[in-house]
Amino acid sequence: MNKLQKLISEATININGKITKHKDAKISVFDRGFLYGDSIYEVTFSKDNCLLFFEEHIKRLYVSSELIYMQIYFSQEEIIQETIKTLKASKIKDAYIRIMLTRGETEITLDPNASTSNNLIIIVKSKPIYPEELYSKGMKLSIVSVLRNDALSTNPSAKSGNYLNNVMAMREAKEKGFDDAIMENKAGYITEGTTFNLWMVKDQVLYTPPVESGLLEGITRDKVISLCLKNSIELKISNFSKDELLDADEVFITSSTRGLMPIYQIDDKQFELERVLMNKINLLYKTLVDEHIKEKKYSY
Amino acid sequence: MNKLQKLISEATININGKITKHKDAKISVFDRGFLYGDSIYEVTFSKDNCLLFFEEHIKRLYVSSELIYMQIYFSQEEIIQETIKTLKASKIKDAYIRIMLTRGETEITLDPNASTSNNLIIIVKSKPIYPEELYSKGMKLSIVSVLRNDALSTNPSAKSGNYLNNVMAMREAKEKGFDDAIMENKAGYITEGTTFNLWMVKDQVLYTPPVESGLLEGITRDKVISLCLKNSIELKISNFSKDELLDADEVFITSSTRGLMPIYQIDDKQFELERVLMNKINLLYKTLVDEHIKEKKYSY
Repeated sequence: MNKLQKLISEATININGKITKHKDAKISVFDRGFLYGDSIYEVTFSKDNCLLFFEEHIKRLYVSSELIYMQIYFSQEEIIQETIKTLKASKIKDAYIRIMLTRGETEITLDPNASTSNNLIIIVKSKPIYPEELYSKGMKLSIVSVLRNDALSTNPSAKSGNYLNNVMAMREAKEKGFDDAIMENKAGYITEGTTFNLWMVKDQVLYTPPVESGLLEGITRDKVISLCLKNSIELKISNFSKDELLDADEVFITSSTRGLMPIYQIDDKQFELERVLMNKINLLYKTLVDEHIKEKKYSY
Repeated sequence: MNKLQKLISEATININGKITKHKDAKISVFDRGFLYGDSIYEVTFSKDNCLLFFEEHIKRLYVSSELIYMQIYFSQEEIIQETIKTLKASKIKDAYIRIMLTRGETEITLDPNASTSNNLIIIVKSKPIYPEELYSKGMKLSIVSVLRNDALSTNPSAKSGNYLNNVMAMREAKEKGFDDAIMENKAGYITEGTTFNLWMVKDQVLYTPPVESGLLEGITRDKVISLCLKNSIELKISNFSKDELLDADEVFITSSTRGLMPIYQIDDKQFELERVLMNKINLLYKTLVDEHIKEKKYSY
């Protein structure tokens, strides 16, 4: 059974409140998400039947909707309850959850004002288990030639259905034999990876690019920023170049599904496997996650 | 009956060779076109049961596939025959035809190498009839703040399912009370409209932005370029700014579905209604279209 077949057999999908299995999980070809990528989404996961940082993800879904001027016709409570309903139906304790909202079906026109409804799609499946080596040794990334979308064109701060930029970056990295890609902006600064934020340590100071570089404000990124403030870890949110990144002492990424994951190589440059500051922050983050899960705020 | 309902009642859709009516025209939520806008498409039309410049559109579909590294598992002949089959089933003489190819269904991963098939969707409906005033008086456009996607990020030369850039441009223009939008690039040069190429006339010379400005090479744009060469009309394919555009003697657009359409206003600037050069080219273009239709190369 290949990965797609496994997905087909185990995923639980909620389309506008109706729970279905994969073969029936379909959307109209007139849906604007399909025609134009005119949609927004969130990916989160659950642990021991409890959703992680769910409020933050729902909040960001609304931020994305505002950035692309998408009216949400579902109430926040409906989106939350439909997510819980899908998780219950899935019977999965540690789940991957993808919540998608499109501008619905309209006649074929770019004009978003034609929209009078959304389609809400929630996909629940088992949380992907990343190979232990990616946490112990780390990832091997490449800074690709594909530039991150400019905030004035297709704003990376909106988590939208326009992901070809990231698909192309991933393709280039894979072709060169790397696990994933890092993208620069037109000004030559590092922005983020295809599905993660980037961090580097130089002389005991932590650096991460600012939102203005062109990136999605990760929930885990926000948590790490707060942890640094609370624990007096020196953090500079500022632009840095490829050369500065390659000169770092430690490099790691953050993402909702992966947490903190170290980088052992970027292009030709290998980094030390001793990661003093990353390990310290990772412990703080894991404690934060454990405490959050214990609260059982969004359990099912 | 609103426009969406009209579309529902009259559209004929072909999904991977199976002809269906709107209510059954659905695609998996795991289709990469839906998840990421990881798709390409063409829009063309037919006149008197004959497809217009169909070879050129098919050729451009393959150009788009190469630009986003999408393997096409259908043969060119299959795509042509399925289009003809859909047109026959529709019984529409003057049709709008949308051909979409996605990277198919995969597990949820950005990596395009997970794809081993496409989904081919062909939508046929009546050709939209534009109000006569848009041809006699013209369109009212706005140069919006949304910048065209950069060719190094999400290349506008690939006609892909990532159209949020254009949707956002259209939204801004509509909000300001204009018919449609013109987009600049980061360097401050004019690129194109949301679904059309742009032309200006200054001192009897025709100007249109180069591909490098960040635009989709329109089929009608190519035809007009050829007509200029054949008919000794002076044409300069070169970058121009907003100020130069607003200082033009005539401005018009080209698109496959609209042909040549004049512009009577851009932002606050109104243009003369006498359009000597545009009218001359328009006559040449209409003759070209008539001759092409008479050939009945792709008739059904």
